[in-house]
Amino acid sequence: MKDVGGGFYIESFFQKHLFHYKIKKWILRKNTEYQLVDICDLEFFGKTVFLDEKIQSAQVDEFIYHESLVHPAMLLNDNPEDIYIIGGGEGATLREVLKHGVKRCVMCDIDKEFVEICREYLPEWHRGNFEDKRAELIYEDARKNLEKRSDKFDVIISDLTEPIEGGPSALLFTVEFYEILKKRLKEGGILAVQAGSTVPYYNVFFASLYKTLREVFSFTAPYEVFIPSFNMSWGFFIASDKNFFKEIDCQMFEIKIKEKEIFEKLSFLTPPYLEKIFIIPKNLKKDLEEKGRILKDDKPFVWERE
Amino acid sequence: MKDVGGGFYIESFFQKHLFHYKIKKWILRKNTEYQLVDICDLEFFGKTVFLDEKIQSAQVDEFIYHESLVHPAMLLNDNPEDIYIIGGGEGATLREVLKHGVKRCVMCDIDKEFVEICREYLPEWHRGNFEDKRAELIYEDARKNLEKRSDKFDVIISDLTEPIEGGPSALLFTVEFYEILKKRLKEGGILAVQAGSTVPYYNVFFASLYKTLREVFSFTAPYEVFIPSFNMSWGFFIASDKNFFKEIDCQMFEIKIKEKEIFEKLSFLTPPYLEKIFIIPKNLKKDLEEKGRILKDDKPFVWERE
Amino acid sequence: MKDVGGGFYIESFFQKHLFHYKIKKWILRKNTEYQLVDICDLEFFGKTVFLDEKIQSAQVDEFIYHESLVHPAMLLNDNPEDIYIIGGGEGATLREVLKHGVKRCVMCDIDKEFVEICREYLPEWHRGNFEDKRAELIYEDARKNLEKRSDKFDVIISDLTEPIEGGPSALLFTVEFYEILKKRLKEGGILAVQAGSTVPYYNVFFASLYKTLREVFSFTAPYEVFIPSFNMSWGFFIASDKNFFKEIDCQMFEIKIKEKEIFEKLSFLTPPYLEKIFIIPKNLKKDLEEKGRILKDDKPFVWERE
Amino acid sequence: MKDVGGGFYIESFFQKHLFHYKIKKWILRKNTEYQLVDICDLEFFGKTVFLDEKIQSAQVDEFIYHESLVHPAMLLNDNPEDIYIIGGGEGATLREVLKHGVKRCVMCDIDKEFVEICREYLPEWHRGNFEDKRAELIYEDARKNLEKRSDKFDVIISDLTEPIEGGPSALLFTVEFYEILKKRLKEGGILAVQAGSTVPYYNVFFASLYKTLREVFSFTAPYEVFIPSFNMSWGFFIASDKNFFKEIDCQMFEIKIKEKEIFEKLSFLTPPYLEKIFIIPKNLKKDLEEKGRILKDDKPFVWERE
Repeated sequence: MKDVGGGFYIESFFQKHLFHYKIKKWILRKNTEYQLVDICDLEFFGKTVFLDEKIQSAQVDEFIYHESLVHPAMLLNDNPEDIYIIGGGEGATLREVLKHGVKRCVMCDIDKEFVEICREYLPEWHRGNFEDKRAELIYEDARKNLEKRSDKFDVIISDLTEPIEGGPSALLFTVEFYEILKKRLKEGGILAVQAGSTVPYYNVFFASLYKTLREVFSFTAPYEVFIPSFNMSWGFFIASDKNFFKEIDCQMFEIKIKEKEIFEKLSFLTPPYLEKIFIIPKNLKKDLEEKGRILKDDKPFVWERE
Repeated sequence: MKDVGGGFYIESFFQKHLFHYKIKKWILRKNTEYQLVDICDLEFFGKTVFLDEKIQSAQVDEFIYHESLVHPAMLLNDNPEDIYIIGGGEGATLREVLKHGVKRCVMCDIDKEFVEICREYLPEWHRGNFEDKRAELIYEDARKNLEKRSDKFDVIISDLTEPIEGGPSALLFTVEFYEILKKRLKEGGILAVQAGSTVPYYNVFFASLYKTLREVFSFTAPYEVFIPSFNMSWGFFIASDKNFFKEIDCQMFEIKIKEKEIFEKLSFLTPPYLEKIFIIPKNLKKDLEEKGRILKDDKPFVWERE
Repeated sequence: MKDVGGGFYIESFFQKHLFHYKIKKWILRKNTEYQLVDICDLEFFGKTVFLDEKIQSAQVDEFIYHESLVHPAMLLNDNPEDIYIIGGGEGATLREVLKHGVKRCVMCDIDKEFVEICREYLPEWHRGNFEDKRAELIYEDARKNLEKRSDKFDVIISDLTEPIEGGPSALLFTVEFYEILKKRLKEGGILAVQAGSTVPYYNVFFASLYKTLREVFSFTAPYEVFIPSFNMSWGFFIASDKNFFKEIDCQMFEIKIKEKEIFEKLSFLTPPYLEKIFIIPKNLKKDLEEKGRILKDDKPFVWERE
Repeated sequence: MKDVGGGFYIESFFQKHLFHYKIKKWILRKNTEYQLVDICDLEFFGKTVFLDEKIQSAQVDEFIYHESLVHPAMLLNDNPEDIYIIGGGEGATLREVLKHGVKRCVMCDIDKEFVEICREYLPEWHRGNFEDKRAELIYEDARKNLEKRSDKFDVIISDLTEPIEGGPSALLFTVEFYEILKKRLKEGGILAVQAGSTVPYYNVFFASLYKTLREVFSFTAPYEVFIPSFNMSWGFFIASDKNFFKEIDCQMFEIKIKEKEIFEKLSFLTPPYLEKIFIIPKNLKKDLEEKGRILKDDKPFVWERE
């Protein structure tokens, strides 16, 4: 029957623009200590995770998000041996990291109960990588954990939910936090950050992160990809004190990929596509320049619902 | 007030995945001979045109669509003097064409009443270009018009609504139609086609057009951009019997732009971004190969609502 | 948080007027041989049953529906000993019947799997009444069952879903069916029928049933109550060859209730409220006269979605 | 086409339960000094007025609301000559009042611009009654106006929007306000009040008004009717120091209508239906007793969106 009845999951981060996902089956709803977790099987998108009623990851295209977050940093670094993931509860960021010949990968997520839910309900995401002996799981606030550590990393990957009212991640996107984090990078170490949407009505967080990272790191390169289940293009940053880029134009870069065998294991990225990913359109360059502000602990970024 | 009341425009092409746009003001609703025209002022997206209750173009990002449709073909052609637009009622495709030093631009849209609505209600789109003496407007079925013409064009741009049940455009996306059209191209002439969404749950039309164009033209290059107000990435093709591309990888191309002054007039494209636009991700390459079919008059493509 | 995100159950029988119920928890989704069963825990309405994505019954106000369906007929009959329920899978119609001192109550529902789901998931509805030794469950098409029986009943209660495209109940609302049913009523026996919504945009089925029942029975009295979880007023009929009513005005009646102890067990009906329930407003009287048609086997009523 | 695309007006007073009305045509959107006015032509409901994005009145069933509000009080009063309407901008309350042989009808609405909109856009409501010489329009806060008057009325009708956050009507539903109003009633004078929804998840305002009116008047009788375009049953009160009722049961009353010619001009009420209207169901009696509180100026009722 051609109709719209039945269950829908409504994503209404912006109450002036809503997305309705048709539910085939609602698999789980659970409140952990930190967040409300929903897992639904959706039309078009398959198994999908929502945290605090915001979409996080869908079976059909999580590879786009996770490949884009992990591989640029991993491929730019000459010898990524020690990796640290902030957040990343689903285990797919870990999975992509472990496709490389790393020595170890620490993953620090504050929400143990959520990671356990993922372990049980999201095998399509982690694919057994939690059991890999190179993986080292920590359940703690990442800021506290990074502050007390003394070891260093080649690549640190920030895979956090965005800072919403009452949420715990606001202080993981500030100058002060990135100063702490930077001390845990080896020389030539790289930070990769999931940085929110790049759509015009939503990219003030992305632009703020750009200004914030540039306060701390010598080189910050933005890139964006489109993620169908988010209905939006999504932004990321590579930040480092070493320059990995050939600058083409202000804020637009090209890279050269040497190691290419890894691409056989990927579903989204190819060498030429990755080499061009840091080239962004004119209007996004403009927004990066004109919008946002430097984020500090005393005035972090918090999404207020409109 | 942080709530979701009031007027919303619901885009429900796929009844399993809906977009709700908050209406600030409803400007016009009118049935022409061919279609139902709605113009609303939307939150985030500004003035927005819907045809048969499908979004066509929004003030805030129509430049992304129209620059992407027009300039690749115009810049690849060595000397674009004679241009032909199929459809394009809003006048923005015409506007982009006339940024180049063309001799004339024929625009053939079947729906005179819609073009008159655009002339009155959408000055932000056409910006007076309907009055340019190089513009030549024809209100007729484009297939009939092309069939009876004998003049030839450097660039033909297909800016049509997608073929839906009962709509008039199904026979403007077939091998037979493209054969007619090809006869109206000069040597080295180029066709540019808006080709529907590239998202996984929606790109069978895009893939079908790819297979169809390849039946008729020696070279067909796909490209995609993300359009925020559509909530989707959108596909286009360049097709020609002359090769303008350096092939990087199967279905991925690079171009070299010579004429660069035009970019000062653009808001989305830059030379490096345009040079990378034909590089598409791995999963879209796969979909292009595996999905769709060659479209012919006796079995054209028609979207059936699901 | 004051927002509209998360899961909603959309009731869209009329696609021009939708109801969105906020889901607290989705309890069950199961396809039986006959229908798609959803059980959700909703905000405001509590546990709620949907069949083929149409709301059937909500924990918070099922008593309004079931008391209204059962007690008028039971109280008008002088000595209701043998009762027959058509449909009524949830067990709440049975529950209300067994509040009276009946000898036996046959319940015939075509969908055994659905009744088993109700037994397990809806204890708030049946409250153990399936185990009452006066209850006699049959899983069969009610028309076939009534046709082959030879015993007779004091009260027959039709508690069926409405006839929708492809559904099985269309032939349980026709003159021919009511002729079969009438043969199974004792002298002075009464039929009670749930008869669909009485709202102006939806009451053509109600009006058709009125015309149909009047073809078969000497006396047919309409009544309506408002059911919050349906967002609508709902209609019922009492039909009999014996007249139980004092006619006040064409199609408006008053009754006199003798047995009043039963009301202590009820949550919606009181003696004065029940005595007035058959008095309907002027516009509904008009719709009953002007809308609908007599329903016959060769042209039954089937809701087509608009 | 059987789909749900296009414009919808979403009524989301409770963000956990939404109503979507399909828009045929959006007629007007205007901000007055006091409120946001929308007038749409809706499927099923015809021309419909929304204030601050809440439904107020629909062409198809405004007669149900306005007849229910006006005629019980007018018919109970022996000789209604002087009438006062609080609010009532659409002019339909005035229209119903003037169906009786009154001497004069004062209507006091704070929002002159809204009344002018109604005069122009809602002829189906006022039907020219604003021009009746018995009508006397005042644009002022009704509390101030009543406070400074010295004349008295047979019937006062409160036809106000409900008190929402930031709205102006909160102090028109308090003990103190009703004390002022009572001084403006002649002996045997009657107050009629529109009193919000009676549905279980929404009737705390209705119950509070009941408790509040009983503080001020010797006799207060609740009644409810179902209003299709509101998707809810709606409550009203008659309050007076004279008793017009035969009490049947606690909070349930019967009246006897003498003058019956008026009913020929009505579309919803009939004499027997009106005589039964004050008989309410058991669960609503219970809610009236158990819910709500006496409303005073220092703690009035204000709806907070949930």
